[in-house]
Formats: sequence, C-alpha cells, structure tokens
Amino acid sequence: MQAFNFTMPTKFYVGCGQVNQLKELAPQYGKKAMVCAAKDTMRQLGILDRVVGLLKDAGLEVSIIDDVEPNPRDVDIDRQVQFFLSEGCDFTIGLGGGSALDTAKAVAFMAAQNPGDSVRDYLAGGSKSDLADVKKPYPVICITTTAGTGSEATKWFVITNTINHDKPGVGHDLLMPSVSIVDPDLMMTMPPSVTRACGIDVLFHAMEAYLAKCANAFTDACALEAIRLVIKYLGRAIENGANDKEAREYMAWANTLGGIVIGEGNSGTVAIHALGHSVGGQTNTAHGLTMCPLAVPYLEMTWDADIERHAKLTRLFGYGDDTMTQQQLAELCPKAMKGVLERFGCDITLKDLGVTEEMIEPMTDSVFQTMAGVLNNSLKPFTREDVIALYKKSM
Amino acid sequence: MQAFNFTMPTKFYVGCGQVNQLKELAPQYGKKAMVCAAKDTMRQLGILDRVVGLLKDAGLEVSIIDDVEPNPRDVDIDRQVQFFLSEGCDFTIGLGGGSALDTAKAVAFMAAQNPGDSVRDYLAGGSKSDLADVKKPYPVICITTTAGTGSEATKWFVITNTINHDKPGVGHDLLMPSVSIVDPDLMMTMPPSVTRACGIDVLFHAMEAYLAKCANAFTDACALEAIRLVIKYLGRAIENGANDKEAREYMAWANTLGGIVIGEGNSGTVAIHALGHSVGGQTNTAHGLTMCPLAVPYLEMTWDADIERHAKLTRLFGYGDDTMTQQQLAELCPKAMKGVLERFGCDITLKDLGVTEEMIEPMTDSVFQTMAGVLNNSLKPFTREDVIALYKKSM
Repeated sequence: MQAFNFTMPTKFYVGCGQVNQLKELAPQYGKKAMVCAAKDTMRQLGILDRVVGLLKDAGLEVSIIDDVEPNPRDVDIDRQVQFFLSEGCDFTIGLGGGSALDTAKAVAFMAAQNPGDSVRDYLAGGSKSDLADVKKPYPVICITTTAGTGSEATKWFVITNTINHDKPGVGHDLLMPSVSIVDPDLMMTMPPSVTRACGIDVLFHAMEAYLAKCANAFTDACALEAIRLVIKYLGRAIENGANDKEAREYMAWANTLGGIVIGEGNSGTVAIHALGHSVGGQTNTAHGLTMCPLAVPYLEMTWDADIERHAKLTRLFGYGDDTMTQQQLAELCPKAMKGVLERFGCDITLKDLGVTEEMIEPMTDSVFQTMAGVLNNSLKPFTREDVIALYKKSM
Repeated sequence: MQAFNFTMPTKFYVGCGQVNQLKELAPQYGKKAMVCAAKDTMRQLGILDRVVGLLKDAGLEVSIIDDVEPNPRDVDIDRQVQFFLSEGCDFTIGLGGGSALDTAKAVAFMAAQNPGDSVRDYLAGGSKSDLADVKKPYPVICITTTAGTGSEATKWFVITNTINHDKPGVGHDLLMPSVSIVDPDLMMTMPPSVTRACGIDVLFHAMEAYLAKCANAFTDACALEAIRLVIKYLGRAIENGANDKEAREYMAWANTLGGIVIGEGNSGTVAIHALGHSVGGQTNTAHGLTMCPLAVPYLEMTWDADIERHAKLTRLFGYGDDTMTQQQLAELCPKAMKGVLERFGCDITLKDLGVTEEMIEPMTDSVFQTMAGVLNNSLKPFTREDVIALYKKSM
C-alpha cells in the first residue's frame, strides 16, 4: 500500500435544503459578505435572491458581484478584488459553478495579499507563483449550483491568463473553503447541456484520480464510488434533471467526492486534465467538454500501464464480463470509455471544440509551462512528442 | 438521499514509515510533549524509544506517562492531568491502542478546563456533562499501534467511571486530534488476540454505521469499504500478522475508515455498541470482544428493518448468492454474521466474558443513562425490555 496523507478542514453540508444552513453558518465569518454569483443564471433562477435573503435574515450586510462568466479571467479578478476591499467585506461566498467558486476563492486570496499585486503574479510563470510568502486569505463559503468541477472540495482556483491564453491553477492549503454547501435543490433547473458538461468532468476527476501515480487507498475508495454514481445517474440527470431529484442528489454528491479525491485526497488528475486545460485556455470551451476528445486516445496509450485498474474501469463502465482475463478487460478500456462518452452525448473531437492544427504547438507549450506536475502524475511518462501525438489523435 | 454534513480537520498520515513524519509535525504544536503510552508493550517493543527519539531529534522536551492500561479510569486521568500541568507540557501524544489515544485526548481536554474539575464531572450524569462551557483543549497527536477503536479519527474519549462502573464517552468537536499517524510498521508485532479484538471492533464500527439511522452517502461508502477490507484481511492479520504486511496495512486503513465513519462522518453506532459499552464497564473486557455476543441476536431482532442493507451485508460477509431475493438475503444476515464471528474466532457469549444474570439490570440502567443516543440510532426502537431481552439472548 502506498503511504498517503489527507485532511478535510472544510465543513461540508450535503443534501436538499442544506442552503438554509447559511443563516447559521455565515455570521461566524464576519458581518459583511461578498457574494460572487454566476452571471445572469443565479439572478434569473431566483437563487441569488434566496441566498441574499438568508444572509440578510442573519443580520449580515451583502455586496454582490453577479457578472462571473465561465473561465474567469485575471483582469476580472483584479477588478473584483478592488471592489471587495472598497466595500470592506469580511468573506466571500461563491454561488454558481466552478467559475463562481473559483472567483470567490481568488478574490478572498488576492484581497489578503499585497496591494497592487495582480492575480497574474501568482499564476504559473508569474513572479510570485512559488507562493512562498502567502498571507492568510479571507474565509470562503462555496455554494455549488452545478455538479461539476469539485471546486467546493479543493484548494485550487483556475484562472485564464489573458496574456498567454493558458488556464493555470493556483493551489494552496489555505485556499480550502471554510464551508461548502452542496444542495441539489439548487441544481434542479440546470439545463441538459450544463448537466452534461459538468457531469462528465466528475467522471474525469474520479477516473483520472484512480489512474494517477498519487492514487491511494483513500482516493481509490472515493473515486470508485464517484464513478459508480456517474455511470448510474448522469444519464438520468441529463434526460430528466428537472424532475429526477435522486439523480441530482447523487450527481451532486459524486461531484463533491470527485473534488475530495483530487483535492484533499491529494491524488490529483493526469494528462487528460493537463491537456484539457490548455484546450480551455485556447477555445473558452466549458471545462468538462475539453477532456472528452482526449480520453479515448489517452487510454489507448496507457491501458497497459496498470492492467488491474484499467480492467476494473472497464467493468465499472458496464463492459466486458467475468469470463474475460484482466488483460482482455484492460485492453477493452478505451472502447468502454468511448461507449460511455457516446451514451452521455460527449463523443466529440477537438475540432468540434474549435481547435485547429495551429493551436497544437502553443497548447503543448502551455501544458509543459503550467501543467507539468499534473502531466507527470500519469502512469506513463509523457514527452513533448507524446503530448503532440495525443492532441493529434484527438482532432 | 438523507442530508448530511462532515468535516475532517485532523491531518491523517497513513502507511508504513509515516511515524517518521512526527519529526516535522510535532514542533508545530509546542516545545514540550507529553507521551501517553500503553503500559509495558510500547516500551518492550521499542516503539516508545523510537517515538521519544524522533521528538528529541526535533528538539523537543518529552514527558512520559507509560502506565496507560486498557479501559482508562477517571482516577487515572485526574492524576495524569496534574502531571501534565506540573510538567508544563504543550500537547499530548497518544501512543498505543484506543486506551492510550483516549488518555491523550482526555488529559489534553481536562488540563484546559477549570483546576479542580474531575473528568468524572464531564462524563454522562456528571455536573458538566452538557459540555456547555468547554475551553479549547491542548493539541493532541494520535499514533495508533493497533487496528481497532478508530479513536484517531473521532472526537470521542471513553473513560470508565469507577463509582458506577459504566463506560461513557465524551465527545466534542474540539476533541478532534490535530494529527493522526496510522503506521502499520508499528502494528506488525501485535499478538493474535489483540489483532482479533481490535479487528472485530473495526467490523462493528463499519457495520453498525451502515445500519444506523444517521447513515448517509459519505459514511455508507466508507463503511462498505471498511467491511470489505476486514472480511478480506482480518483472518490473514490474525494468523500471520508478524509477516503479512499487506494485511496489516489494510486493517490499519480499515480501522481509520471505521473511525471516520462513526466520528467525523457522524453516522455513529447502534445498540450493539450501546450494550457492549456497559459490558466493558462491568467486566473490563477488551472493548472489541464485548460486541461479539450481541451481534447475532441484534441482527435477529432488526434484519427486517431495512431489507436492502441487510441483504448487502449478507453478500459482503460472503453468504448467499445472486439467485436469492433481497428478503431471503436479509433474513440470512444473522447467520452470515455468526459465520464471520466463527471464522475470526469471535463466536463467544456474554457468559464467556464473565457476565452474570445479576449484571443485566445494572448494565441496562447504564445503557439508558450513558448510551441512550447511540441506542436510539438503531433502525428499530429499543425499549428497556428489548435491551434486557438482547442481553439475555446473548448469554
């Protein structure tokens, strides 16, 4: 057994109605909250009003940022930090999907650092990217309204660098949310396209964690459970999400489990995420979809790196049978992956996402500049040629 | 899905060699450590010397309590608290099984409360048992050398009340260990009898958590994994524990998983533990064994309270087959339990543990006085008559 360590300092509240806990929880973190809400949707769905109402009932003052767009940009974070400081807020509340949660984390983090710093200084390649002298961020409460990204359970925020178009993550132990609320009631109205893009991201988090060098007994157990839940419930959540509460509940929980695995469980992800991030940086595609074209070619390159684990995945994906050898099952894994992607409407190519041949070189540069650690967590080594080959096979 | 919440503020270090992390971790908690070590064994096995050596290498002063006996008593804790204070220690380190870890927790807790308080004041029935005005305990590091009790992952310590002979637990969020080290290297020399008594306790923690009213999606996943590991590895650990590192590793991890489930996962245990504690209070039997006589009669009384869960347990225990209905599998659960207990050499009666008919009344009183919450976590209600009946069937 590989030695491992983990901690989960975040207080998780999971299940329908848990958003109401906010009334008791939020006052512990100060008197003035800054809500960072996903643009348009949170207001249109009445979720923003509900959260602000709970905060005001608890006697808090509330400032609002409600223009968080997918793939938050460095320039937006810098602007929002100034707003946080000028309003004199005590903590942030991320309300929405991964972008809103990451914005809440990034604002709480940057507001505590030196005045005049840009978040870009802390991204990979920036002057402070070693995070050597980080001041304690303001507290963060995450309220996830999508079942994807797992940001509510990780110490990471991901920001698009508008200068070089990559999409690096910043991770620090002090960036763990203080509280995370995972309330499926807030996810019932998520449209099928978002349900799909977020749900498939959960599968990649769990699957990559299970296939990572840093996988361990804790992350294996959580990852296998998350995969089981996605295979069982994602189709139902896409097809009938507005009515199928059970599917929403278990997808919500699978998402948080996936976050725990790659975040506090320390398994991390592998080349699929490393390459996918650069696709997101170039094309501004919803994060979950950027991994879909890469998954089958990736497994074709790596299925023999750990026969037992790939065989287990094949069975969990619903393929093969008990008469097959482990070797046969492992070899079937890419085909099983393709079947799963087809079933969830995610069998797409990089071309479908707008990637052109010319983008492959700069995306490859970006992988090695910003995601080398993630890349090296794969069960096989990936050279520059391997990365280019994987991108090409995924076109 | 039942709503739930959890947090895991403890930093867990799991795996062979992790005890060496102590050198880096301990200095974060102060300059003088008090090691609370299980009597005789820790010194004889050289584990106490190794730990003290690591602490001294890290520049710490060390005070030692090395007379912790099974089922720590209130009078011992009160004495040890005075020693902690007179030595001017900054934190405690529990080194041994559940008794040593609980002693470390109890001393760190009581040393921070009002001078002159006895730990008995904080036990069920005591003047401060509501824990309404608790001061923050000193930090605690748990180094478990047995795979049982799960104390390294819970906010509980269990102390024998020498006046009324019950064995209540004290639980408080502030009692979570700061660090827990789960190093199977320290468990290799555990004798078969201790391996058995501790290992079967792991099974009860996980099984009871899975059959508890407070069971939830998080605790279910961890509990099922812990049960799977105990069924697979406990026999090997009992029979060949000195050489079978893999069995020791997975039993160590199963134990911590079981602790997480009943502790931070908040599922708790049920009537088996509620009644077992009073057996321990009366007979001073190793904790794990006190549940063995109760398990089969308990399942005979409750198997139909949740057909699906009891059916799943039967299959996990290695009984039944896919041709049987859920109802048939659930009904088989007591028999499967008996088979598991036989296989691990734990098929014993209360009489075997020295319980007499005269003890049943005071034990029943004790259950309702000190373990009513645990009792009520069972899937069926338990009246006084039910408790007496369960004790009688277990004789």
